[in-house]
This record gives sequence, structure tokens and C-alpha cells, in this order.
Amino acid sequence: MERLDDAIASGGAKAYVAYGSSLDADMRYLTRFRTTDPVVFLQKIGEKGTIIVSQMEYERASRESTAAPMTRAQAGLTEIVKEEKNRWRAYARMIAGLVGGDILVPPQFPAALARELEAFVRVIVDEDTVLKARAVKTDEEVTAIARVQEATEAAMGGAVSSIRSSRARKGILYRGRIPLTSEILQKEVAIALLSRGCRAVDTIISCGEDSAIPHMRGSGPLREGASIILDIFPQDEETGYTADMSRTVVKGEPAAELNEMFEAVRGAQSLAATLVRPGTTGAEVHGKVVDYFKERGFESNTRGFIHNLGHGVGLDVHELPVLGPGGGELAAGNVITLEPGLYYPGKGGIRLEDMGVVTKKGFRDLTRMPREFRV
Amino acid sequence: MERLDDAIASGGAKAYVAYGSSLDADMRYLTRFRTTDPVVFLQKIGEKGTIIVSQMEYERASRESTAAPMTRAQAGLTEIVKEEKNRWRAYARMIAGLVGGDILVPPQFPAALARELEAFVRVIVDEDTVLKARAVKTDEEVTAIARVQEATEAAMGGAVSSIRSSRARKGILYRGRIPLTSEILQKEVAIALLSRGCRAVDTIISCGEDSAIPHMRGSGPLREGASIILDIFPQDEETGYTADMSRTVVKGEPAAELNEMFEAVRGAQSLAATLVRPGTTGAEVHGKVVDYFKERGFESNTRGFIHNLGHGVGLDVHELPVLGPGGGELAAGNVITLEPGLYYPGKGGIRLEDMGVVTKKGFRDLTRMPREFRV
Repeated sequence: MERLDDAIASGGAKAYVAYGSSLDADMRYLTRFRTTDPVVFLQKIGEKGTIIVSQMEYERASRESTAAPMTRAQAGLTEIVKEEKNRWRAYARMIAGLVGGDILVPPQFPAALARELEAFVRVIVDEDTVLKARAVKTDEEVTAIARVQEATEAAMGGAVSSIRSSRARKGILYRGRIPLTSEILQKEVAIALLSRGCRAVDTIISCGEDSAIPHMRGSGPLREGASIILDIFPQDEETGYTADMSRTVVKGEPAAELNEMFEAVRGAQSLAATLVRPGTTGAEVHGKVVDYFKERGFESNTRGFIHNLGHGVGLDVHELPVLGPGGGELAAGNVITLEPGLYYPGKGGIRLEDMGVVTKKGFRDLTRMPREFRV
Repeated sequence: MERLDDAIASGGAKAYVAYGSSLDADMRYLTRFRTTDPVVFLQKIGEKGTIIVSQMEYERASRESTAAPMTRAQAGLTEIVKEEKNRWRAYARMIAGLVGGDILVPPQFPAALARELEAFVRVIVDEDTVLKARAVKTDEEVTAIARVQEATEAAMGGAVSSIRSSRARKGILYRGRIPLTSEILQKEVAIALLSRGCRAVDTIISCGEDSAIPHMRGSGPLREGASIILDIFPQDEETGYTADMSRTVVKGEPAAELNEMFEAVRGAQSLAATLVRPGTTGAEVHGKVVDYFKERGFESNTRGFIHNLGHGVGLDVHELPVLGPGGGELAAGNVITLEPGLYYPGKGGIRLEDMGVVTKKGFRDLTRMPREFRV
């Protein structure tokens, strides 16, 4: 990571040090090591990164991590803990001993460890070097994300088919004699994803009033004529990469307002796709979608279009760049979502979300599934 | 949380502030709110905790969180970001404005936010108040964990049955004409868990050489006469609580050494269960298991018994107390694992892991499944 070397140098430090499990996407990016227990990543300027793990994990780290493995014993921790019982102080002594100079740390570095390190060295907090590096994907990363997207569409396709083939009785959708619920479809989506090695994370299948609250996961029977938002954002167990996709469908005759909202959202998404290109900012693209909605009579405050237009997708399902107020420049290699939505309590919600790559020329959509409202 | 008030007071602070998503188990414990995006938790001394969320999450937080919800706009952030573009500095201004005094933060608090807060107030890093509170479970929490354990045993039972009913040909275990692999069983375990609302996390089903490395997940065909470690540690999607359980089985005739190892591990686990009681330390119980193994000729360094005897289980699958070197006092209400293991490259690994509650009198095992080696 040359970028990291530059950041270390410009901070006047000797090394970059991170601490955490692979739930921290930066850590996973830097080490490519899956672990629920925290590890230390340490990169001295001009050298390859090192991952410090327990004796028990050394063998696996040698096989799986892109960083050079070192045991805690090799790093000196076993000796240190004989004298120093405080865990953070012991780690600080180990790290300071290995680096022997000032240290650059990521913003999410634990405050307790930063405090203890300050007894030995200067600690400089990096702004977002790794986060920014992660935002620009290699071809290999795009391939990994596209694979998750395929699994996502398979799961989405199954759920939409279930709604399509349901029958309404007294306003409720049925599969045979059983009411078709959010929970049933969420479980089926999870199983479809699992069969492709992906893990469903809080899949949203929300209907009617629930769909008017963007992050409500949804529960209970699905209903005729009400908008049903399906938002699926799984993670590949193997690679850690994610995808993100939403569709909104209705079974039966929707209220005229819902049809209008759907058409506006579809138009907004198509517009956004034409605006994306390297050099423009996430703020600009978002702003133009706000304008587009405004022209059609839809507000963007506590009702209407109440969230950002989109976000980067990678090892985290929400990462840089931001497509919203304050969003910075887009760059070729970004993988982003375009997900305009409209939300009106009393009417329901509509969201359409495609994910694609920012190319030199514009936006290459990785989402194949058509955008149909009535099924 | 009275404990938290005590910690705030003894640090001379006015409030406790945490920042993170619900992947941070402390945050989930304090708010009972599921979120992949970071939120702020803020508790002033003597008052109920507040959770600061986006406008979009306010409605859901009102329904789901045990903390009182407040939007970022209500907290002043919307105004602050008009002037202050740096995210951490903006949050620091918001928090300092709300608290108006010194602040206690958890050890994992982001270093970047701590730095920015220091421009306004004194920041005291708490050692482990919430971690320690989490270690002592309420009856409700034990019930939640026991429910995950039931799901875990159902999944474990299915996997062990599959191995039992397999047939060996040329040293490989088959289900009909298909070699029975780690991957097949891992997937079936995940599906069994999912049907009970639980998420499999990196299930280990490792055979032979792989089983000699404790954290190897395992891959490829399972083999006759080789030890097969099954270690399942899922999380309940709804409650966030986890369980943890391991069994080791063999199909066909194992080497005599494996039999001896299994008997020693079973004996060690039974011994440990008699030693657990409030007031003894995790270090003592671990030490006695080390002695027990030593008497039987099994070492505890880079081979043999190479990991801790156990750990607390709760919202994190590894939490306090530690049953290993340095482990502190056990208390009634702890939920812990007892998982002795022996690992010898060239021979294989054996691990047995039960999870149970520390009661006033001793150890109440929550694990029902028998410990059988040959299936």
C-alpha cells in the first residue's frame, strides 16, 4: 500500500498501526484475514504489513493473510504481560517496542490503546487513507462484488416470483392457504443466498405503512395493492464483499399516487445513471435528483426523498463515496448504488436501487433485473 | 444502568458517551438497537440514556431501542455541519454541546472522536464498566442464550447424524454417491440455524490435519478414522445473543492415540465443571486443567492444550470472564464455555465444548447433547 506509506510519511510517523477484528472492513482490507478476535496490523514505512495473531492463529494467518504473520510471543507480548496486567498498556508496550517511533492510526483506533501508546510515542490520527483506498476498486474486487450481485438477484427473483404467484383474499396475499409474510420471504431470501455462499444481513421486505419507514425490516402478511419494498444487501462469506439492491412491487391495483411515485423514482434513477461520471461529485448528482423530484411536486425533507441518493459498496455495504449532501468527487473504479426513494406515511414507500461501477465514461450498471412495479 | 452512573461519577465526568454500530456489543447492550450505521449513545449522570440517530431511523428507534431516541437534527448536528465539514469535529461539537462537561468513553471509542472532543472537554477512558456488566446475565439473558443453544444443538445433531449415517469407501465418507464434505455440512448447519432465526458464524467442521489447528474452518471430504471437530457458534438475529458448542466425532476405527486424547479431554471437561463456582478465578480453573493434562502426559504450550479453557458468552461469542491465564473471579450469572482441547499435528485435534451458567452452587450446563466419539 503506497498510499499508506505516503500517509505515514506526511504525518511524520514511522509506521501505521491498526487494531481490531475483521468486522472492521479496513482491517479486512489490509490483512484479508477473517477473525472475530482482534489482531494488530502494523506497517512500517517502505515495508510489507505484519499481522500479529495468537499462536493458535499463526498457521491459518500464514495461509490466508496477505500480511506477514507474527505471533504475539514473537512480538514480545508474552514477556510483557508477565509484568503488565493491563491489556491496553501491554499492547501499547509491544507496539511501541516494535515501531520505535511515532505512529499513525486509523480514526476508529481504540481510544484506550491510543492513550497508552502516548506514554511512549506520538500518535497521529489518520483521516481516511484506507477508507479512500477502499473506495476505488480493482477489477478483482469488482468481480467479487458482481458475484454477490448475482446471488442477490437470484434471491430477489425468487421473492418477487413468490409475490407474483400469490393470490389475494380479503386484501391479504396468500401462498396456497398460508398468508405470505415478510418473515417467510426474508427466510427464503436468506436460504437462497446461503446456497450461494452469501449471508443475508437484515433483509428488508416491508409492506404498506412499514415501507414508508426506509429501515423498517417489515413483518406480518403482505397486502394487496400496497407497495412492497424488497432491499437485499448480503455479504459473501468467503471474500467479505457485499452487494446492495432494492425493488418495489405491488400485487393488485395500487392507489394512483403510488403509481406516480413509482414513475418518479424510476425516472430519478435513470436520470442519476446518466449524471454519474468521474469528476462530478456525489453532492451534485444527489442535488439534481432533489431538483428532479421537486419539479414533480415531491419534497426532500422529513417526507418524500428523505435519504441519500446512494453510497459506495465494498467490504462494507455503506462506504465511500457518499452520494448525498457533502459527497465528494466520484472516481473511476467506485462501486456505488443509485437508490432514490419516496416515503409518505399513509401512502407507503417506493425505492429502486441499482449498484454499478463508475467507469471512465459513466456508470456501468451491475444490476440486470428489470424495474417493474405491478407483478 | 447504575454501574455506569458510578463509573461516570468516579471519573469526575458528567456523562458517558459511546459511538458505533450494533456490531459493537456494548452499544447493542446499552441501546438494544440493531443498526449497521453508527449511532451515538449518551447517558448523563442520573438520567436515562439517549440514542442519537438519523431522521430516517427515529421512528424505528422509538419502537425498538431501550434508550430515548433523538434525531441528529434535534441534537444540533444539522446546524453544526453547515459550518463544520469534518465529520469527527462536527460530532465532537454536538456531543460537547449536549453534555457541557467532562466525558467518560469506552475503551473502543474512536481515537479520532476522542481527539476532537478534547478541544472542548476532558475525555476519560473507562476501563471495562459495560464489559463487566455484560458478563453477569439476567434471567432474561440466560433464556435468550438457552434458546440459541437449542438451535445450536439441533444443527449439531443434524451434522453428527449425517456423519453417523455416512459410509466409508477407500477412507472417504460418502452420502450415497457423493463424498461428504466439510462444506456440505457447514451449509446444512447454516440452514438448520436459519430456520430457527439464528445466523451461523464461521462454523468449523474440520477433519484430520485441519482439526489439529483450532481455528481452521475445514474443507474437503471427511475421512474415515480421522477426528472431526464440529464447532458451532451462532447468533440469534432477533436478540443478538450467541451460543457456543463443540463436539468431536470419528467414523470408523480411530488411532489409539486419538481415543486417549478424547478420554483425556472428556475427563478435563468433567473436572472443570466441578471446579466452577463463584469466587474461584478463571485462571485457577484453567490452571487445574493444565495440571490434569500434564499428569496424563499432555503438554500445554505450542502443542497439546494450546488455548484457553473457556470464555464468557453473550452478545459477543467471546466476552468476559476469561477462563485462562490472567482470568479473574467468576460470578453467579456468568455464562461460560468449558472447552478443553488437545491438538497434535500428525494426529489431529479433539475439542469438547459445553456452555453453561455459573450459579451460586457451581456450574449449570446448558448443553444437553452427549459426548460420544465414535458414531
